[in-house]
Amino acid sequence: MRIILCGFGVVGQSLAKLLESRAEDLYARYGLKPRIIGVFDSKGSAVDVSGLDVTRLIQIKKKYGSVKKYSNTKNNVSGIQMINELEAEVLIETTASNYKDAEPGMSHIINAMKHGMHVISVNKGPLALAFPSLMELATYNHVIFRFSGTVGGGTPILDYAKNSLKGERIISFDGILNGTTNYILTNMTNGMSFKDALNDAKKRGYVEADESLDLDGLDAAAKLVILANWIMGMKVTMPEIKRIGIRKIDSDDIRKAAANNSAIKLIASCDNGLIVKPKELPFDNPLCVSGTLNAISFTSEHSGTQTIIGRGAGGIETASSILRDLIDIRNEIVKI
Amino acid sequence: MRIILCGFGVVGQSLAKLLESRAEDLYARYGLKPRIIGVFDSKGSAVDVSGLDVTRLIQIKKKYGSVKKYSNTKNNVSGIQMINELEAEVLIETTASNYKDAEPGMSHIINAMKHGMHVISVNKGPLALAFPSLMELATYNHVIFRFSGTVGGGTPILDYAKNSLKGERIISFDGILNGTTNYILTNMTNGMSFKDALNDAKKRGYVEADESLDLDGLDAAAKLVILANWIMGMKVTMPEIKRIGIRKIDSDDIRKAAANNSAIKLIASCDNGLIVKPKELPFDNPLCVSGTLNAISFTSEHSGTQTIIGRGAGGIETASSILRDLIDIRNEIVKI
Repeated sequence: MRIILCGFGVVGQSLAKLLESRAEDLYARYGLKPRIIGVFDSKGSAVDVSGLDVTRLIQIKKKYGSVKKYSNTKNNVSGIQMINELEAEVLIETTASNYKDAEPGMSHIINAMKHGMHVISVNKGPLALAFPSLMELATYNHVIFRFSGTVGGGTPILDYAKNSLKGERIISFDGILNGTTNYILTNMTNGMSFKDALNDAKKRGYVEADESLDLDGLDAAAKLVILANWIMGMKVTMPEIKRIGIRKIDSDDIRKAAANNSAIKLIASCDNGLIVKPKELPFDNPLCVSGTLNAISFTSEHSGTQTIIGRGAGGIETASSILRDLIDIRNEIVKI
Repeated sequence: MRIILCGFGVVGQSLAKLLESRAEDLYARYGLKPRIIGVFDSKGSAVDVSGLDVTRLIQIKKKYGSVKKYSNTKNNVSGIQMINELEAEVLIETTASNYKDAEPGMSHIINAMKHGMHVISVNKGPLALAFPSLMELATYNHVIFRFSGTVGGGTPILDYAKNSLKGERIISFDGILNGTTNYILTNMTNGMSFKDALNDAKKRGYVEADESLDLDGLDAAAKLVILANWIMGMKVTMPEIKRIGIRKIDSDDIRKAAANNSAIKLIASCDNGLIVKPKELPFDNPLCVSGTLNAISFTSEHSGTQTIIGRGAGGIETASSILRDLIDIRNEIVKI
């Protein structure tokens, strides 16, 4: 299975290492023989149709800040050029999410699909802005489109709702889908001011370069769009999500909630409408998790409310979700 | 899909109603056309190869305490006779679990497999005592064996670990797998004595007729056997589980735990060995759930610890897990 990898940051590198270290096992258990034949980052690209050397690739990236110098040739192709010219079965999109135009990820995905490649995206931008049309494009081009890592990182929330609960009708769900704001609010519940809590989260590297993605609920809203489309069969995009962030929460609000044996959490919910906003949650509600954890509660017709809790981010965690998608694609291809 | 149903208690009746109420939807979405052609309980049986009338069946059961009087004929076959003589695709085993000889469920399952029927069991007894050999028998007879409802009731714990986490290696797990003992221990954490807490649980109908199944950890141990075999690929049975129940927990233990910001829970764990025993769990551990809830935390190689929480019992919840198994079997059959 030949792979083009877009972006070579923490997730891309974790994935490359994971595929290498698990090579024998993946072939034995799943008949999966992944081979990364092209990688590009914002500065350049590396290509080897017989498979790139992962160790060398990571060394080069570390040394030069780009994979560009992997080979000595000068003909360094652009990402789009690579997608249009290099033959591969799967494109894996790991560039950063943006919610203005979702580029460059959007173009990567669209071009790959038009060239008949299956696509795995952990970039939420394209899905948040254009989920319904990307699904149509995938169907039209007979390619498989997977994005497990966009919600819950390594915690298979999408698969749980879609497959483990098959036969059930999910009526509604509520989730803590952004670990950073959960960390900040947990700090505040433990007595910190908003400012100190935010600074602490920044120091630990939890906050996005554009802090608005976390604080104003954009990241949570993007995940809500993905869940609503994939799980509930809606056709919605980002502008349709009502959204209130956590900037206006102060220590008074936290204290008032605590007096009710509750904590304030940023909740993305799909019940009457789609909305992201801070809500009081009783401490003994299974959804009320602390620190950077993510959690989601699905309420279904016959089996009540079920909650899944796990880490929502991390390079290796997200890489493991990409691996699941690869196995899934391999299984689907075999069926045809 | 012709079905023989063993046992017609709460779960059996919930299932019959569920299949009827969802008939159109199941056919449209999954191509599933289930037809219950034979039912038996401890007192007698009812057969109609063109499909039994569910409403009438439930009325008869309510009126006479058995399905025996469904038809006016005198030739009321026994369960085993029905399995040996009636042609059906799937046997659903819902009789009560027992951990001495697992009968009559064990014979139902073995006979059904030998006659080429796929089997769904929510009866834990046969699995607890003979999981490895039942799996072999299923393989030998080319039939599918499913038992989602045995662990977690309507919460798809087995499927989550087996399918949603595919590609991952689960290293260990800990679970609160028995809702009754969790309810009793939660009552004790709220100040009740063991005796009062047990009586309260009994009043609410949470305790098994043989209270030892709950209090001495037999039910939790049976679920641990199923998880260890199915998820971890072990080949173990009930006698290999170390087991300490909750009878010796007193209010002092609970108070000491509370002083450590912890609660005592009956934990089934697979880490170094397989064991069911009471343990202190910090209140803020996601596994530390209250009331009758069940919860399980899986720790895997790459995606950290993930916890699933849900109701572990209930007629309609367990029926919904049987329905998932039916859909699963239908999907597997179509593949062949």
